[in-house]
Amino acid sequence: MAANTGNSTSERLWDAAIRLFDRKGFAATGIRELASEADVSISALYHHMDTKNSLLRDLMLEGMNTLLTPARALLESPGSPVVDLLGLIRIHVAFHCERSALAKVTDVELRSLSAEDRQSIIKLRDEYQKLWFDTIVRGCTEGVFAIKEPRLATFALLEMCTGTYHWYSPEGHYSVEQIARYYGALALNMLGHGAAGSDVGGASV
Amino acid sequence: MAANTGNSTSERLWDAAIRLFDRKGFAATGIRELASEADVSISALYHHMDTKNSLLRDLMLEGMNTLLTPARALLESPGSPVVDLLGLIRIHVAFHCERSALAKVTDVELRSLSAEDRQSIIKLRDEYQKLWFDTIVRGCTEGVFAIKEPRLATFALLEMCTGTYHWYSPEGHYSVEQIARYYGALALNMLGHGAAGSDVGGASV
Repeated sequence: MAANTGNSTSERLWDAAIRLFDRKGFAATGIRELASEADVSISALYHHMDTKNSLLRDLMLEGMNTLLTPARALLESPGSPVVDLLGLIRIHVAFHCERSALAKVTDVELRSLSAEDRQSIIKLRDEYQKLWFDTIVRGCTEGVFAIKEPRLATFALLEMCTGTYHWYSPEGHYSVEQIARYYGALALNMLGHGAAGSDVGGASV
Repeated sequence: MAANTGNSTSERLWDAAIRLFDRKGFAATGIRELASEADVSISALYHHMDTKNSLLRDLMLEGMNTLLTPARALLESPGSPVVDLLGLIRIHVAFHCERSALAKVTDVELRSLSAEDRQSIIKLRDEYQKLWFDTIVRGCTEGVFAIKEPRLATFALLEMCTGTYHWYSPEGHYSVEQIARYYGALALNMLGHGAAGSDVGGASV
């Protein structure tokens, strides 16, 4: 598949696919409709993709890698767990606000992939979640976070940041930068940063 | 439409619709398929629903009211903001874990409703979110929460609890009760409960 760069046919096709899959769902989107939305002929469309399913998989892979690449780079040489976590939050919030349609399609249409493709995406997602989990565990080990269940805290933080795609609007009251910054502060609070003997540290699950 | 109670045709139809809309999406689910999944004839199906769209709307209304009814009851005579917030979290987490398919369908398929039906659901959702927002603001006013942006904190908390539908499993490590309890503790941390001069209280957005 051609790379999704430049204002090319490929790019128009990708953008059209994301719009339609988000608006109607993958299964309900027809090939003719996709060609029409991308403003290309059916034959040109098949020049740029193999099947609708492979297009969906490629979109999702691109989405997951847009998250994973900067997250891996950030943690290649880990720094303070606090700073690293704030960096992860910034990456996650920016992606889910700025590319909300692709992010929603990735979450919703995992159901539509073949078992093999689904496994590829889940493998990347697991690697990504582990970067968060390891950062939180590291913070607990170093004593800068004070919680007992890092796995649940990881889910809570990821989902809180993912959920921005439900309500963020470029015309809204808060910029992506403001949301990332404020969510970072909420996250540090949540993890009991700087709060010795916090409620969560003492909670039994 | 007949009420969705008892092991009746209506109930089978509702369950089948939720399963299919969650698995394939609303637009891709055909009437014949719905009848087959519910194990009823097409004519019996039309005895129990008007259109596929009205069925979707009714399912969503039921979902929203399953959240709203206990939340309204809880806050009819507000108590401590801490106790009230923990109650809201319990209601929200239980619904999103135990009725995850309906909750996901409600989030994803808002796009498939008519403008009028969408407005009815959004009105209920706004009322529901306001119950959370007002509780958090009350906690700030009473000095038991220490945050500056109650609107963003409301989104963060709601989405963190909503996200349980992505990962909770009845066969998993944590019970719904454990998740609700632990998320409650994380939420109080997040809101700076008991942490004078918390990071968030001092953050500028």
